[in-house]
Amino acid sequence: MTATVPQHLHLVTLAVADISRARAFYDALGWTAHGDSNPHVVFYQTGGMVLGLYGRDALAADLDRPSLGEPGAVTLALNLGTKEDVAPMVERWLAAGATRLTPIKETPWGALMAYVADPDGHPWEIGCVPSFLPDDAGNLILP
Amino acid sequence: MTATVPQHLHLVTLAVADISRARAFYDALGWTAHGDSNPHVVFYQTGGMVLGLYGRDALAADLDRPSLGEPGAVTLALNLGTKEDVAPMVERWLAAGATRLTPIKETPWGALMAYVADPDGHPWEIGCVPSFLPDDAGNLILP
Repeated sequence: MTATVPQHLHLVTLAVADISRARAFYDALGWTAHGDSNPHVVFYQTGGMVLGLYGRDALAADLDRPSLGEPGAVTLALNLGTKEDVAPMVERWLAAGATRLTPIKETPWGALMAYVADPDGHPWEIGCVPSFLPDDAGNLILP
Repeated sequence: MTATVPQHLHLVTLAVADISRARAFYDALGWTAHGDSNPHVVFYQTGGMVLGLYGRDALAADLDRPSLGEPGAVTLALNLGTKEDVAPMVERWLAAGATRLTPIKETPWGALMAYVADPDGHPWEIGCVPSFLPDDAGNLILP
């Protein structure tokens, strides 16, 4: 019998050079780490899934690799309810210690967005995509 | 006034060399792409968030970078309900075209898991973590 693959994503784990520094950044966004977090791994409940922070060396070892590449091949996005929210939200991330990667721009598909990076260089897209608005529970359910 | 940052993750976008090849892999898992998908971007509804596939060159341009690093600094996880599900699920991913990165192993924290990679090298952890079981709706809600 063939296994059925749930169409789901349960955890996204970001490799970070310094767990304390990475946690301080996400905490500074106002996020609350889960109580099972410890000096080796940190968990944030993000809707129905979990964002984890984990050491680069530990992750490389788990993957049986000598080292990991630099972040950039995966981007994360936070979608906001209105375009007016974008500029203050970008400022909020910069105030917490994010780095600006791009200016805020209108995209050909009608979004207003900017990329910022967390202290390890993981890119986050902060934007408002009118066709991809979060629902009242904060989830993004495609129409 | 300071913007409140939703503790949420709406999209995870994977940079891929060839959108058709990447989509063929996730489709071969049995996943259903959203109808707004097109030759330039593909969307999969994964619980309350969305997994996207997007071209490496296009993403590099969006990030104002000459090129992107290789995948590896971010891992994705699919959590299963029982340890007995792990081996057939890994086989299911390999049959769809994934590459095995590690054997299935028991971890010090009581999980049974293996890493596989999609055709672009994005690592997925396929495992059962008894303390992190998905709920009936398929979500991972930390205790």
